[in-house]
Amino acid sequence: MEDFIHSESVDSDLQLKVTISREKLVENVNHVIKAVSSRTTIPILTGIKFVASKEGIELTGSDSDVSIQSFIPLEENGIENATVDIPGQIVLQARFFSDIVKKLPGDQVDLEVDSRLMTRITSGSSEFNLNGQDAEEYPHLPSIREENSFNIRTDVLKHVIKQTVFAVSTSETRPVLTGVNWNIQNGKLSCVSTDSHRLAMRTISIETEDNLEKSNVIIPGKSLSDLAKILDDSGSDWVQIIITDNQILFKSNHLQFYSRLLEGNYPNTQGLIPQESKTEVILSTKSFLQAIDRASLLAREERNNVVKLKTLNDNTIEILSQSTEIGRVFENVSTKSIEGEEIRISFSAKYMMDALSKIDATEIKINFTGAMRPFLIRPVDEQDILMLILPVRTN
Amino acid sequence: MEDFIHSESVDSDLQLKVTISREKLVENVNHVIKAVSSRTTIPILTGIKFVASKEGIELTGSDSDVSIQSFIPLEENGIENATVDIPGQIVLQARFFSDIVKKLPGDQVDLEVDSRLMTRITSGSSEFNLNGQDAEEYPHLPSIREENSFNIRTDVLKHVIKQTVFAVSTSETRPVLTGVNWNIQNGKLSCVSTDSHRLAMRTISIETEDNLEKSNVIIPGKSLSDLAKILDDSGSDWVQIIITDNQILFKSNHLQFYSRLLEGNYPNTQGLIPQESKTEVILSTKSFLQAIDRASLLAREERNNVVKLKTLNDNTIEILSQSTEIGRVFENVSTKSIEGEEIRISFSAKYMMDALSKIDATEIKINFTGAMRPFLIRPVDEQDILMLILPVRTN
Repeated sequence: MEDFIHSESVDSDLQLKVTISREKLVENVNHVIKAVSSRTTIPILTGIKFVASKEGIELTGSDSDVSIQSFIPLEENGIENATVDIPGQIVLQARFFSDIVKKLPGDQVDLEVDSRLMTRITSGSSEFNLNGQDAEEYPHLPSIREENSFNIRTDVLKHVIKQTVFAVSTSETRPVLTGVNWNIQNGKLSCVSTDSHRLAMRTISIETEDNLEKSNVIIPGKSLSDLAKILDDSGSDWVQIIITDNQILFKSNHLQFYSRLLEGNYPNTQGLIPQESKTEVILSTKSFLQAIDRASLLAREERNNVVKLKTLNDNTIEILSQSTEIGRVFENVSTKSIEGEEIRISFSAKYMMDALSKIDATEIKINFTGAMRPFLIRPVDEQDILMLILPVRTN
Repeated sequence: MEDFIHSESVDSDLQLKVTISREKLVENVNHVIKAVSSRTTIPILTGIKFVASKEGIELTGSDSDVSIQSFIPLEENGIENATVDIPGQIVLQARFFSDIVKKLPGDQVDLEVDSRLMTRITSGSSEFNLNGQDAEEYPHLPSIREENSFNIRTDVLKHVIKQTVFAVSTSETRPVLTGVNWNIQNGKLSCVSTDSHRLAMRTISIETEDNLEKSNVIIPGKSLSDLAKILDDSGSDWVQIIITDNQILFKSNHLQFYSRLLEGNYPNTQGLIPQESKTEVILSTKSFLQAIDRASLLAREERNNVVKLKTLNDNTIEILSQSTEIGRVFENVSTKSIEGEEIRISFSAKYMMDALSKIDATEIKINFTGAMRPFLIRPVDEQDILMLILPVRTN
């Protein structure tokens, strides 16, 4: 360690020189860093690509599956965000760059890169000298033609993601099941996920040009979860979506979110959904969820988190679970109506809570077709969301 | 698993029967569960002891090092907390009991124990049957005579704990250093902790009867951290403290917190504190802390998190740190004054941040007696708190 001598001061042959609002920089670094993984096999992807042009500053983070690009215009709503004295580009180690800009003392940050890629970041009484990497070596993002695009309201898109992504498979045995299957037909987008023990389906209307049709689009669940997080801060009401053969691009304000698509054929899920019903129960979503939650306190101790449900004669259902060591729990839940055959059925309390917590309606109907057949959970008066759970065999 | 039959219903020979406010029960279970460890070698200590008497309900949790007892009076400020129909006692599995009472649907909880220790907990439409354990088998708490007690304001005690407990050793090599050393003399309580690389000392005035004197009281750091957490919710202005040969008892409102003391002799720390000073720096606590925080961003990458400090001629100090791979950082901090010799010294950024964040004063003075000697950090005008850090040798 050299002793207190500013020996590696930046030389005068500058490749890049900008001044930028610290707040804007922090906000946009926070966006793109969500795509950066520390476990990448491509070393340069641990960095953030920083490009300064006459238009503004573009930041890129990527783990090669997901890439996020964020743009800071020089001026926005009459407020100056940045000045670019010398346009140029550099790749800076993402975690350090992010930590540093968060903690810098001033409102403005000066960033200069010399011919040896040494990057001097100054703000107030702080001076950081970081070893940069050559931006030419940073992988190019996929080039996507803006055709066949459609728009979804940001809040609707986030909600649709939340209502489906929870049911994707976490196992790589069948990779396509780790994604959500999107299909577009007749102005409707339908999103389906299943881990082969339960299924979630959500349909929304979209406005498309030229009767856009797309099938077998499989978006990795992780990409959608990341996207939902970043959309919180995008400040835009609409997201524009473009789907190509192997990529999907979400554009929102100054943000671009790219994800690769999963290869393979998504299974036909339509055949899984029972068309008949032998028992129909209508009840309050909230009281049912809370009763399952309590019953699962003991079920969790056992291997498979299973609770039993039984219809009673007086329009109530009983939920039971027990753990040999700890004890047992009985829950009585009043229903609005029970129609059809009596039923006794066992299922995963976790799957049921996952499903119920994604349904906004205050009342649901559950349709059973027998103790060993999958059953359906839906809002009473809506067709655009459907949850399916496979029961568990118990003794 | 038996099928939907309430076969293990509680028999009529009840050993305990109470009704209790769910809110009060949750609050008090939350207190005592802080002492319960899942890694205990004494199985019954995974439980909470529940004792109902004509006065109220007493809950106890313990890991044998720390025991917490909480009392719910039948009536408090004219509000009824509980009714005891049949006094008795039972031990209930702590984690389940806690999870269950938190989620029960009603405002009141009924609890009944039968002769087989089967405990029925009912509230609203919920019924839990838990296997209880015999309370006779629960270890007795130490019996402590209420003599030689003294009082400390709750907020002061919490503050004193925070200002000293961070510097205890986490290594079991010298067990006494995992505790905070309390000494009482001449109406003053002094609290010292050291891990042999740094030291924290805090002194406060206390009111005692009969000129109480105590030395070599060593309280486990973990007990003090637990105590500080629980004092948040005690709602009492004062804590009464009683010290015996091997136990300390903190009493606050309806809470009793017992901790064992560490055996052994605490080292004499007075000799570690330098009496002379060759360099004195006075500066803002906050700007110094923020500069060290930024400098440590790069220091963290290296093995020992070391930063270098150098006094400059113009009443400023410079802080430097560097990581061969990432880069280097320079921080300039203005001081109010620098008196005495120039100094260049290296120390742990973490230790410095730990110490600075525990000092409330806006200005501190740092006294150095050479690059290889421990140095002192104190508020400018206060003698009751002192932080000491050993420097690190660098090349």
